[in-house]
Amino acid sequence: MTTESTFINLLRGFATDPAARGLLDDVAVIEVGDAALIITHDMMAEGVHFRSNANPEDVAWKLVASNLSDLAAKGAEPVGVLLGFMLGDDAWDRAFAAGLKKVLAHYHVALLGGDTVANRGDKRAFGLTALGIASHRPVPSRGGAQVGDILYVTGTLGDALAGFELIDAGFDEVGPLADAFNRPMARLADGRALAPLVTAMMDVSDGLLLDAERIATASQIGIEIDLSCVPLSPLYVSYRSDSRESRMQAASWGDDYQLLFTAPPEAALPVPATAVGRVIDGGGLTLKDGANPVKLPPTLGYLHQ
Amino acid sequence: MTTESTFINLLRGFATDPAARGLLDDVAVIEVGDAALIITHDMMAEGVHFRSNANPEDVAWKLVASNLSDLAAKGAEPVGVLLGFMLGDDAWDRAFAAGLKKVLAHYHVALLGGDTVANRGDKRAFGLTALGIASHRPVPSRGGAQVGDILYVTGTLGDALAGFELIDAGFDEVGPLADAFNRPMARLADGRALAPLVTAMMDVSDGLLLDAERIATASQIGIEIDLSCVPLSPLYVSYRSDSRESRMQAASWGDDYQLLFTAPPEAALPVPATAVGRVIDGGGLTLKDGANPVKLPPTLGYLHQ
Repeated sequence: MTTESTFINLLRGFATDPAARGLLDDVAVIEVGDAALIITHDMMAEGVHFRSNANPEDVAWKLVASNLSDLAAKGAEPVGVLLGFMLGDDAWDRAFAAGLKKVLAHYHVALLGGDTVANRGDKRAFGLTALGIASHRPVPSRGGAQVGDILYVTGTLGDALAGFELIDAGFDEVGPLADAFNRPMARLADGRALAPLVTAMMDVSDGLLLDAERIATASQIGIEIDLSCVPLSPLYVSYRSDSRESRMQAASWGDDYQLLFTAPPEAALPVPATAVGRVIDGGGLTLKDGANPVKLPPTLGYLHQ
Repeated sequence: MTTESTFINLLRGFATDPAARGLLDDVAVIEVGDAALIITHDMMAEGVHFRSNANPEDVAWKLVASNLSDLAAKGAEPVGVLLGFMLGDDAWDRAFAAGLKKVLAHYHVALLGGDTVANRGDKRAFGLTALGIASHRPVPSRGGAQVGDILYVTGTLGDALAGFELIDAGFDEVGPLADAFNRPMARLADGRALAPLVTAMMDVSDGLLLDAERIATASQIGIEIDLSCVPLSPLYVSYRSDSRESRMQAASWGDDYQLLFTAPPEAALPVPATAVGRVIDGGGLTLKDGANPVKLPPTLGYLHQ
């Protein structure tokens, strides 16, 4: 099967409009009159992003929240969503619609339209397009990190990983770790508060290390991450441990939807965030654990094969 | 399986933002500053909208053209598209990307972004979101037809049906009828020229009769169609015949992507179009063939089950 990077490289050859941001960002930024429209489209496929026995309300929640998280990372005010829905079992689809209603009400976001198609296959997939309006110009990208900046992340990492493992093992369907996996929160207010002072920002959807490397690549600088600073929740620590290994896992697994951003050291952050690294000369990602250099793991995060 | 109408009725209960147009239109219309942004999302599923052995370039073409056709019916100037792509066979995906490049270049439309997902199933589906800016306000809807208006359609109908049948029978992969099915044209210039004078407009994606009924429902009026006026191409007539039956089939099959619109009798049309009916008191659809009333067929067009 084609890999995501191979296919996106093919598209990059002709996605030359500045609004496409070189297909290096999670969103497109379109100038409409005086406004900057932020638009993103994310899909979820059965067997890849959700299990066949997942709660349909959770699938709807995550589909919406993962897209709104991309808007959050650009400091956007969400306007609405369009749904691409593959029809299936009647009870499942009703539960999905009920979940969609709930998550849209939670975020005060409008359902604007979309499409439904019959499903002739054995697996389903859904798509969502989310639109927002930038609250701050320029709109944060992945490409503005400057040498000397600090790398920050909001919240804690690894909870979604722990939740996924607990659900997979048949435990704790409704606990807070399972919720972290099933019902992630899009940090919209944090994103808007941070947008004016960050030099680069994105959401952690595929893992801290992989997403930080993406900022390094887009910004043409290096990033050094200190594993000992990776913020873990007490629940994650009690589930796993507070070892270098558990921090490495929390830093190389996705689905946390926290905001990852760089800002100058003197910036006064308007929201709580943890400094996890710094922007340095050079390129790519470097890891340490306190004073000790650490080798990069073979896989930095979740790659869509 | 849930039907499209059941599911959309569920969504309609909470898609109450005016931009959603009650989920009765093919697009959403979002006010951004002084501009009206037109946005639409259509999907294509393997085994439903394209055959498993379809030419990937044709799939890319139709995915883009069918979405741009929705913009055309609103008189919009396209801005760009976002692609939701399910990864598959490498050669297939490369051909799809090549086709996407061609169709976007043909329409001068930018690829803005999107998402790719792995496919764990036996069938694939793709989604496309298309954005445009309205060239005329108010933006044509399905809901403005007035008693006394004439119902018009651009071009000819039935060519895509004939093309589908020829392809299905193994004939004529590259002939003009096959092209009508595989590579429909979005009538963007026609839509922009018509937008200032129509009272309602949509594209014929599911069949003349079904789509005209949708205008009748949204406009809360009746529509009478004269089958003898349904425009057929010489190729369609030579392939099938010029009988009432062949006109009925051409009028109840989709994929033609012509523009269907209502306008006052005195309107001077800026583009060629054929008068196929008129807007009358009452509701729903009435058929005649010259002077003779004709019973409605059991199926008015392509319904997405």
